[in-house]
Amino acid sequence: MIYFDNSATTKPFTEVLESFMKVSSSYFGNPSSLHQVGGQAEKLLSQAHAQIAKILGVKTSEIVFTSGGTEGNNLAIKGIAMEHRGRGKHIITTEIEHDSVRNSVKQLEELGFEVTYIPVTKDGRVNPADIERAIRHDTILVSVIHINNEVGSVQPIQEIGTLLKDFPKIYFHVDHVQGVGKLPLDFYRYGIDLCTISGHKFHGLKGTGALFVKDGVRISSLLSGGGQEGKRRNGTENVAGMVAMAKALRMSEDLRKQKVDQLRQILGTIKSGLKQIPEATIHTPETNEAPHILNFSLKGIKAEVFVHALEQEGIYVSTTSACSSKRNAPSKTLIAMGVSTDQAESAIRISLSYENTLQEAERAVKAIQNSVKRLREVMK
Amino acid sequence: MIYFDNSATTKPFTEVLESFMKVSSSYFGNPSSLHQVGGQAEKLLSQAHAQIAKILGVKTSEIVFTSGGTEGNNLAIKGIAMEHRGRGKHIITTEIEHDSVRNSVKQLEELGFEVTYIPVTKDGRVNPADIERAIRHDTILVSVIHINNEVGSVQPIQEIGTLLKDFPKIYFHVDHVQGVGKLPLDFYRYGIDLCTISGHKFHGLKGTGALFVKDGVRISSLLSGGGQEGKRRNGTENVAGMVAMAKALRMSEDLRKQKVDQLRQILGTIKSGLKQIPEATIHTPETNEAPHILNFSLKGIKAEVFVHALEQEGIYVSTTSACSSKRNAPSKTLIAMGVSTDQAESAIRISLSYENTLQEAERAVKAIQNSVKRLREVMK
Repeated sequence: MIYFDNSATTKPFTEVLESFMKVSSSYFGNPSSLHQVGGQAEKLLSQAHAQIAKILGVKTSEIVFTSGGTEGNNLAIKGIAMEHRGRGKHIITTEIEHDSVRNSVKQLEELGFEVTYIPVTKDGRVNPADIERAIRHDTILVSVIHINNEVGSVQPIQEIGTLLKDFPKIYFHVDHVQGVGKLPLDFYRYGIDLCTISGHKFHGLKGTGALFVKDGVRISSLLSGGGQEGKRRNGTENVAGMVAMAKALRMSEDLRKQKVDQLRQILGTIKSGLKQIPEATIHTPETNEAPHILNFSLKGIKAEVFVHALEQEGIYVSTTSACSSKRNAPSKTLIAMGVSTDQAESAIRISLSYENTLQEAERAVKAIQNSVKRLREVMK
Repeated sequence: MIYFDNSATTKPFTEVLESFMKVSSSYFGNPSSLHQVGGQAEKLLSQAHAQIAKILGVKTSEIVFTSGGTEGNNLAIKGIAMEHRGRGKHIITTEIEHDSVRNSVKQLEELGFEVTYIPVTKDGRVNPADIERAIRHDTILVSVIHINNEVGSVQPIQEIGTLLKDFPKIYFHVDHVQGVGKLPLDFYRYGIDLCTISGHKFHGLKGTGALFVKDGVRISSLLSGGGQEGKRRNGTENVAGMVAMAKALRMSEDLRKQKVDQLRQILGTIKSGLKQIPEATIHTPETNEAPHILNFSLKGIKAEVFVHALEQEGIYVSTTSACSSKRNAPSKTLIAMGVSTDQAESAIRISLSYENTLQEAERAVKAIQNSVKRLREVMK
């Protein structure tokens, strides 16, 4: 099996599963309990906070554990909106956000908030000047994805964060879900106030995530309850899941330092192979691109058909983001980039992890070339 | 170790952990992915939905997976409130709810909702007539806990549900977190529209839960995103966690059928032992009481001191609900029952699982009696 759908989800590292099992079976206490069974769980939970904070270069108190990327994005956006709505109801985001951001701001629009959606260039990138121009006296939040999950375009987070430093009352949220372990962010230097990560995108477990909330930034909680995570995220903490996420993050960061160039090589091999196919179009930009995501179209071949053709060869890719894939709607990111609906409906996403190899890329190239030939012959 | 803090959290069953491992390692796909790796995960997820629905006696489409009890309660309450706020902004609940309910309605009060808190008798029970009297033309929701988590009083869910049948526009939510595997509810017959369960309270894993949402009941989603769980709860599903929860629920229900009387026997043994202690007061009512929770005070001994004294004997109990235990505030349930602050500050909760035995109860009784004697001598 060649698994090239790592932006949908990754296979948990064996060591991550071992940590989860160990904690779940031997340290099952409720971290809020007063006795030692709870105390042991609480200690592990604190360590996981500290480890994740250290790797991300922030303070322990700034890490709020969540159930994943969707919750993190919702908590950041709705948490800021509801807490600071007295000061303003204008939010700025982009046309290429993940559904969890897009639909969070949509829900806020129904509650009377106004949202400006910044367009992107044909390279799938927002222009920081467009964000600056959109700022109003009542803007309270700017939310921008770091690495777009559908095409892999990298957004100018540092530039946006820098210009926002002139507007200290506007909070800056970054959806970093696809960036973790691939392209690090310097949260403090880039002026980021809130930042979302998701465990299962870097070989941790589904149902785990974290939101960075800079010290001093007040957010309204989405899940009210017993006061956990500094009252910002209530509910009994998934201690084993968070310990496992800390391990996955450390391992992913170690791999990034050693192997990120190999990811680029693998993508390069696939790109070269695609360039030999007639009427194949690569949508991922040539510059400011992520090391692990490649989006392309094969003229005349519906994406879904091609996903299944490659599946026959034991190669797993996707059409668009996983959560949109069953809706059969063309990628919103591609449409925002000015790609035609026809092309968007043929778009295929390959997304890598550090477990992928050059050999897999070479096999995949052949399979892609053969499948295209076969499908086009059938369709004649 | 004698673990008597099962209302805080339970030890996951070995079979539950095995299921989790199996699914996480072999079926790690994103259930939304189009290919077979996703399809296998989706199939397991559907089976988990179906299994849980069947055990609870409801339809598969009525089970929404969540990250736990707190999320379930928040989703039910805020989901109904936000969806139906155009029709009315009045909510009825009780004075003895879990913090996740109490603080959810508090948050809604800040948004202009009005909440009526129904008091309880000295037995920790609401009077259905009080609920009926509190109903207004703009009431949209009644939320009542099934088994109170602090004292184990069982609320008259059937009676409340029956009277609410005359008010078809008022939704009825039940927090069933402490009831699962102990006292079943007949969701349809009792007229329940929404019902919360939490995996880690019945030997499943932390970070897993479900909300029953009766077909036809519309709720606003709390976590916006990719459209998972019928758009009611977005975010990549914790497939392995939900498969594990289905297993935990089946095992717990099997145990209930075989062993619920044994739970009552164990509690009975402890109760008899407590009655021999001078100035020990049992707060759990004599009737309409849960089979697994016992709350009592030992005059003059602060609860925290006693928890640690029993810990020395290898016995783990709690002061109040786990999430409140570090706040050192007296139990809100006991205060609502008219217990004095002094007594509430001495309150100890014992909560059982089917893994506890009569031998443990006998050992615990001796340890409690000895600890009381020792502590009272010290304090003289």
